[in-house]
Amino acid sequence: MHATAIENLIEKFEQLPGIGRKSAERIAFHILEHMSSDDARSMAAGIIDAKEKICLCQTCQNLTDTNPCKICSSPKRDNSIICVVESPEDVSAIENTHEFNGLYHVLHGALSPMDGISPDDIKINELLLRLTDGGVKEVIMATNPTVSGTATAVYISKLLAPFDVKVTRIAHGIPIGSDLEYADKITLIKALEGRQIM
Amino acid sequence: MHATAIENLIEKFEQLPGIGRKSAERIAFHILEHMSSDDARSMAAGIIDAKEKICLCQTCQNLTDTNPCKICSSPKRDNSIICVVESPEDVSAIENTHEFNGLYHVLHGALSPMDGISPDDIKINELLLRLTDGGVKEVIMATNPTVSGTATAVYISKLLAPFDVKVTRIAHGIPIGSDLEYADKITLIKALEGRQIM
Repeated sequence: MHATAIENLIEKFEQLPGIGRKSAERIAFHILEHMSSDDARSMAAGIIDAKEKICLCQTCQNLTDTNPCKICSSPKRDNSIICVVESPEDVSAIENTHEFNGLYHVLHGALSPMDGISPDDIKINELLLRLTDGGVKEVIMATNPTVSGTATAVYISKLLAPFDVKVTRIAHGIPIGSDLEYADKITLIKALEGRQIM
Repeated sequence: MHATAIENLIEKFEQLPGIGRKSAERIAFHILEHMSSDDARSMAAGIIDAKEKICLCQTCQNLTDTNPCKICSSPKRDNSIICVVESPEDVSAIENTHEFNGLYHVLHGALSPMDGISPDDIKINELLLRLTDGGVKEVIMATNPTVSGTATAVYISKLLAPFDVKVTRIAHGIPIGSDLEYADKITLIKALEGRQIM
């Protein structure tokens, strides 16, 4: 019984990740009831603008509006370390720690034969290309600790064997602030295996 | 360290209700990574289109793209009952029950002196105007059972006293499917007060 334009708007927002029917309705009504026409226009323009301006960095494959991206072209970053992640969100997460000063490589996915995602579907060749130049001393595999993320890390580490480069994997263990008793079995095993001298 | 166009897009989505920084990032990356340019354009157009076409129904003040709205102009609806609600979302919620066949009146808010919302800020005069024509036999106050919603219901019911119209309030009590022991004290009191013969 919604007006067509409202229903249409609700359906658009329903397509977004984490937005169900209820949230989509709430957002649509917010735009119609509480947003000025200018703000609504500016939101619409923001979507088109980002979609038009953003492309993949020719080097690290992260989303960027300059090419190469800000990180790849920064003289302050350490060119000898590449951190390999699955998605641009992972780059944001690591950047927010302000503790990593190397470069990134975004795979845009992880190997998953079940979903038909093979090595050619993610940016593995682009990573190998970056190593042929030399200068890279360490590649940190920071793919997710899931089945496909781990498989991807193992697959890439084998490909990197011919190169003179150290391949490392981010540590798995009990998250800081959480409780041992709530940790799942595999995380606990990893935490024990990865124990370090204090 | 996000590209400007991405940061701009994230900020736009952060303004929406129920969307925090994290969800806004996820939505922005989804649009950039997984949506086609056409879909993104169509989403942007949907926002502008809805904002341009949707106005308030001259009768019930609900959001509509026809004037009067589909409900007010439907010959199948019972013109003698008006259900007064705070927001267009409330109309959707009641319409989804398919159990109410009367008309609505959307106040667009509730009285709240603390927030500076006085009777002139919500659509009370428009409701009184609808009653001067006669023909309305019952006004159901379906504002929220909050302090401001209840105050609004009481305020309007007093204004309606001079009219020859029955003013009712939706029932408050234990929600169906929930558990007595988890109900708050005031809901329990209301449930006891509102008890009915079986």
